[in-house]
Amino acid sequence: MQTYPSKLLEQAVNELSKLPGIGRKTAMRMALHLLKRNPAEVDALGTSIIKMRNEVNYCKECRNISDAESCAICANPKRDHALICVVEDIRDVMAIENTGQFGGVYHVLGGIISPMDGIGPQDLHIDALINRLENSPVAEVILALPTTIEGDTTNFYLYRKLNDFKIKLTTIARGVSIGDELEHTDEVTLGRSILNRTPYESGLSRK
Amino acid sequence: MQTYPSKLLEQAVNELSKLPGIGRKTAMRMALHLLKRNPAEVDALGTSIIKMRNEVNYCKECRNISDAESCAICANPKRDHALICVVEDIRDVMAIENTGQFGGVYHVLGGIISPMDGIGPQDLHIDALINRLENSPVAEVILALPTTIEGDTTNFYLYRKLNDFKIKLTTIARGVSIGDELEHTDEVTLGRSILNRTPYESGLSRK
Repeated sequence: MQTYPSKLLEQAVNELSKLPGIGRKTAMRMALHLLKRNPAEVDALGTSIIKMRNEVNYCKECRNISDAESCAICANPKRDHALICVVEDIRDVMAIENTGQFGGVYHVLGGIISPMDGIGPQDLHIDALINRLENSPVAEVILALPTTIEGDTTNFYLYRKLNDFKIKLTTIARGVSIGDELEHTDEVTLGRSILNRTPYESGLSRK
Repeated sequence: MQTYPSKLLEQAVNELSKLPGIGRKTAMRMALHLLKRNPAEVDALGTSIIKMRNEVNYCKECRNISDAESCAICANPKRDHALICVVEDIRDVMAIENTGQFGGVYHVLGGIISPMDGIGPQDLHIDALINRLENSPVAEVILALPTTIEGDTTNFYLYRKLNDFKIKLTTIARGVSIGDELEHTDEVTLGRSILNRTPYESGLSRK
């Protein structure tokens, strides 16, 4: 066990090394970096994470992170509230928003079903999604979860749960990335892109 | 520019991405991880770094990080205070302490001369080292700085500054790592290990 010359330093290294992907060596480098920074800057870092953890809200509709009771997307009357895109977490919302191609609203599950990590359906915001379908007119739910075993499991679970509702259930298109060469595309993606081929005229969506 | 659904989240990501080696994507991953952690744990992280920055002391002798006025090494009467090992930062102190082979005391420069990074001799604890030599009987100073241009520059600067004192000035031995094969050792190290060869009987120090 490493002995530190200072308890204060040791404590900070211990806490920093609990961050994801940060080992003790990197934590030590961070701590020494912080010691060289201005106290006001270190204070800004420390208080910003504490404040975030204590004060952050989740949108009562879509469970996205939000400062208000409803997030800016759910509160926007111009968005199509009958079209819900189900995603794993807030990063997916940000990625889809960046495309500027989606005019509906989201539902953030907060994870995907993963028995290996001890995450079951009850840990996700699935009941909240069903509540939304029961209490407001929804025409279509788009599943935009990862193409992993966990993502597929969650897709299937949601499919069974949502089956009784009169809605269209879709998933986002999987295929060859734009700009990618066919010979460098993996077989599963290429195979699926042939099975799910689209008519030529709508192949280049330019709206 | 990415738009965040929450100012609190954005602020935390901004602050986390100022840490060394952390980009915005990793900062986002850290922030989402912190949101899933217990508020008490996030509070422990935040307060530990603020407390460390505000309350940490530097040993008045060797400038090592310390909780007291003098660090545990300088305050230990069993250590040889006439033998000073000059190092770049606290990590080097910890590395040398781990070997259990050094019975003297340290002097932490807090960096090395690096004009590219705007670090000159006046930014390092060199005056404090000269003060120690003037005010206490020192027999030997060991330079244990990195073998880089910056390390060599700092070595040479210290050599000129310490030249007037009646002390022995040494550097740590550079050579082939124990367990390394000669054919995989770089030419500079191998060449130096031949120039600085040691008599066979002291070659295996077993004390």
